[in-house]
Amino acid sequence: MNIPQRIEALRARMRDAQVSLYLVPTSDFHGSEYVGEHFKCREYLSGFTGSAGTLLVGLEEAWLWTDGRYFLQAARQLEGSGITLMRMGEEGVPTLSGQLARLSGPGAALGFDGRTLSARFVNGLRRQLPGLALKPDLDLAGEVWPERPALSRRSVWELDARIAGRTRAQKLEQLRSQMEKEGAELLLLPCLDEIAWLLNLRGDDVACCPVFLAYALVERERVRLFAAREIFSPELADALTRDGVELCPYEGIFEALRGLPGGSRLWLDSAAANYALFASLPAGTHVTDKPTPVVLAKSVKNEAEIEGERTAHLYDGIALTKFLYRLKTGGVEGLTELSAARILEELRRGQPGYLGPSFETISAYGTHGAVVHYAPTPETDLPLEARSFLLVDSGGQYRTGTTDVTRTIALGPLTGQERQLYTAVLRGHLALAAARFRQGCTGRNLDYLARAPLWEKGLDYNHGTGHGVGFLLNVHEGPNNIRWRPAQNPADDAVLLPGMITSDEPGIYLDGRFGVRLENLLLCTQTQRTEYGVFLGFEPLTLAPFDRQAILPGEMTGEERALLNRYHQHVYETLAPHLSPEEARWLQAETLPL
Amino acid sequence: MNIPQRIEALRARMRDAQVSLYLVPTSDFHGSEYVGEHFKCREYLSGFTGSAGTLLVGLEEAWLWTDGRYFLQAARQLEGSGITLMRMGEEGVPTLSGQLARLSGPGAALGFDGRTLSARFVNGLRRQLPGLALKPDLDLAGEVWPERPALSRRSVWELDARIAGRTRAQKLEQLRSQMEKEGAELLLLPCLDEIAWLLNLRGDDVACCPVFLAYALVERERVRLFAAREIFSPELADALTRDGVELCPYEGIFEALRGLPGGSRLWLDSAAANYALFASLPAGTHVTDKPTPVVLAKSVKNEAEIEGERTAHLYDGIALTKFLYRLKTGGVEGLTELSAARILEELRRGQPGYLGPSFETISAYGTHGAVVHYAPTPETDLPLEARSFLLVDSGGQYRTGTTDVTRTIALGPLTGQERQLYTAVLRGHLALAAARFRQGCTGRNLDYLARAPLWEKGLDYNHGTGHGVGFLLNVHEGPNNIRWRPAQNPADDAVLLPGMITSDEPGIYLDGRFGVRLENLLLCTQTQRTEYGVFLGFEPLTLAPFDRQAILPGEMTGEERALLNRYHQHVYETLAPHLSPEEARWLQAETLPL
Repeated sequence: MNIPQRIEALRARMRDAQVSLYLVPTSDFHGSEYVGEHFKCREYLSGFTGSAGTLLVGLEEAWLWTDGRYFLQAARQLEGSGITLMRMGEEGVPTLSGQLARLSGPGAALGFDGRTLSARFVNGLRRQLPGLALKPDLDLAGEVWPERPALSRRSVWELDARIAGRTRAQKLEQLRSQMEKEGAELLLLPCLDEIAWLLNLRGDDVACCPVFLAYALVERERVRLFAAREIFSPELADALTRDGVELCPYEGIFEALRGLPGGSRLWLDSAAANYALFASLPAGTHVTDKPTPVVLAKSVKNEAEIEGERTAHLYDGIALTKFLYRLKTGGVEGLTELSAARILEELRRGQPGYLGPSFETISAYGTHGAVVHYAPTPETDLPLEARSFLLVDSGGQYRTGTTDVTRTIALGPLTGQERQLYTAVLRGHLALAAARFRQGCTGRNLDYLARAPLWEKGLDYNHGTGHGVGFLLNVHEGPNNIRWRPAQNPADDAVLLPGMITSDEPGIYLDGRFGVRLENLLLCTQTQRTEYGVFLGFEPLTLAPFDRQAILPGEMTGEERALLNRYHQHVYETLAPHLSPEEARWLQAETLPL
Repeated sequence: MNIPQRIEALRARMRDAQVSLYLVPTSDFHGSEYVGEHFKCREYLSGFTGSAGTLLVGLEEAWLWTDGRYFLQAARQLEGSGITLMRMGEEGVPTLSGQLARLSGPGAALGFDGRTLSARFVNGLRRQLPGLALKPDLDLAGEVWPERPALSRRSVWELDARIAGRTRAQKLEQLRSQMEKEGAELLLLPCLDEIAWLLNLRGDDVACCPVFLAYALVERERVRLFAAREIFSPELADALTRDGVELCPYEGIFEALRGLPGGSRLWLDSAAANYALFASLPAGTHVTDKPTPVVLAKSVKNEAEIEGERTAHLYDGIALTKFLYRLKTGGVEGLTELSAARILEELRRGQPGYLGPSFETISAYGTHGAVVHYAPTPETDLPLEARSFLLVDSGGQYRTGTTDVTRTIALGPLTGQERQLYTAVLRGHLALAAARFRQGCTGRNLDYLARAPLWEKGLDYNHGTGHGVGFLLNVHEGPNNIRWRPAQNPADDAVLLPGMITSDEPGIYLDGRFGVRLENLLLCTQTQRTEYGVFLGFEPLTLAPFDRQAILPGEMTGEERALLNRYHQHVYETLAPHLSPEEARWLQAETLPL
């Protein structure tokens, strides 16, 4: 079936179900950013493969919302589909809620699978559009997708407590004391990474994210873990039992919630939990509606996690530096975006503890560098030439941590503008990494540092400067971030704390010309405590040189050059013992003081 | 009567009125920061003269909350009063709401004058403490204050439309179109500066603030201005009538609100309007509860207002520079904090259009400089010596604008630490003034710039970096500010817009040693508009040299010295033609490039 046929099949089901609108978000049942194959209904129905997008199908028309990263790609992929592209944030383009308001009225009914939308979103719709009937129990997209992949059920493995830094029992004890403080008898964890972190378990149900499909319901005396029974080995199941974790069927969560005693005091973040969970609660349940304590506990890395991240970044830095050496000294003859990415993947695979990529590698040559979330495919794969930039944003999952790094590499002679903008992005990157700030600051207080060299020139980049990074978990995690605009949900603008890991990745994108992005992961650390307060700073975890060929030293202040030189010296001293003599010599030259 | 006697007299009235608690905030009926003499009940009852503080009197105990600026002063002034000082923000010190929660219970009743507390605060109490009975109609403080000054009724004068930049009619037309957009038939203005700005009127009912006591109720066809009839000349009353402004008795506002037709659609900001106003609304009134459009319109200065501010700052800069010349060349023999302040006031009075100070001058020598809001009195007045710093924070109301400026002046040799910290504060001041940022930023995005040189050293100052400034109005006005912490009320963290005037005043305060604060007013301007957005910056309005004797040039980067040199050149070129030859020569030397 082509896309219009799929949409027509959906419309037939919509008529049967008596809904005039059907909503297909990009989500699994856990609010995950990246989803398993079973959940790619929006992609199946629209043909649009980007990682973010929401499809609304009416009986005559259909619309797909996506953000600036994907405007070009979505326009191309929606051609001939009959689906109208809604460019989010552009003037005159209605929001999803705005469009639903316009389409609501007598007889209008919106169907969706209540497991794929957050309770907060659906409750908000109910409040804002009382005239729109909601039918939240319709998995129509699944019905019209004959070859839909089954739910993933890959094996779960246990993370050694020495690597995790805390035993499962210790983590549960801390969580329960926080529940008690809040007066909550039960706590529902709908998010896959929170469950994995809390229980020291890892899985493989979502590409690049070592999580497994589950819900967890934490009580004083037990934890019920709702997941496919066969993904646990007998030994692991025993170990869980010893820690009071009972295994229950994945879909059993809804029945369990419906069976809660009346008046139960439940901690459930309606921004994270899906609507079907919320709708299963007995009337009279007292809900503490805010982020669970696991969000913060997970984001503040303990000593073992930090140590592990350092190890992972050492190995990752070795692989990436070998890759840079290969590109800069071996020439690019015969290489393409994809084959270059494969070389890097090979080098990572040669490192101890490497498990796989932490996200799909962005290997973007020349004009492709200006497409923020470009990922090469055989159809788009550009041959590399000995000029302009190759932008490589990639990362790995290691046994002891998660990496995410971007380098923009001069493959040959650069234009003055290329060097000028590379230098401006680098200056912003270095300024943010060097920030010293009082505890209490959020990323909003610091984002200016990364953008200032661009804003000065009337330039900007249309994405956040930094995101939190998980510990052998999702490469994007909250609540820490570096952004200049306020988050829609204030809970997402967290105070930065020692132990948090956040990316520092300013960029610049000139449509049809080139793109530059430079990214290290920064560990937040305490620098001093005085009578004026606690002061924090950052320490770079990422180890790889910036490209001196792309830098205009005259456009940097002496302080900025000193920051770069200090970082480069650290990179050289840490990596050199692990490189071949030729690689080390090359790295030494690349990291000489500017 | 001494303070304990006054408190006892109040308790007798409390028993009569059957309340166990009585609350006395620092406020008039309009939420003003500074209040007229009639409203200084908290000062009368407690003896504490600071500008911020809240007194809660129980039948046995009494408590006074104030902030860090006033801890020392309040501790001294409350000695022997029987009132417990509650240091706001200190660990273990309950908040006012926390204390009320502890004291509420069977039989507890809280009395207050509902005109002196905001509707939002009282409604919040009602929600949070359903067990606490509220008696909001008790002006007991007034009853026990025999010699209480009458309400001020000083003459109102009209601001020429050429100075205001818009006629009253134009401003009303704009406001009404905004009301219409919001679907509001009526709009209540409870704030004195909003009324003065909207109607191009100025008064003299609050020291240093050219406002007059009034409420205004704006409708489609008329404005009812509730104020003492005798403060308007017949000519002014006629002019107002021509613009559809009806004069009504000051206290008539409550009756007018009670008489609104059922179902009226009224715009009223419950954070600004007092509770008695809110309580006067007929049931079923539809309230649009958010800041009035006047707040933003007033903060974004029009071309005439900006031109006027430039003129005011020129005159103010001349006076201040003459003062600096006098101190730096004439020696400080025989001078004190107060007499120095009088010299400055004399010099301002010699300038065209000067009306008076815009706030009480802070003239703080040596150790007094560390007391953030120190104002000298005959009892505390220190003689100046030829060493250390004199910190002078002062400002003027002029016919065409309001100024606010702080200079910290080396009266003789300085210690290394004094110069080091002066330089750090100056670096922060200059960095903020030089910010270039995308429209959409608030002060939270920029505050880091002012604090970075201190935070680097583990130092900080315990106040905001900047506040909005009115146009021939209050020296502190919202919604713009520069702060790093989020405001309690998000509406107070406004996006910075071209035309807004904000202070830039970092400082450092070493208890028992000295203080440094450096303040210019900055006009926000558009610097460029590109495909990436609209970019803004600041232009300093204040004209006066910084003290080169206090600067350690070696601690500044080349860029920072260039910023200072550029500002100093601008100060010299603008002021020199208005100074005597000796003053100009001195200023030239003071502003030579570093």
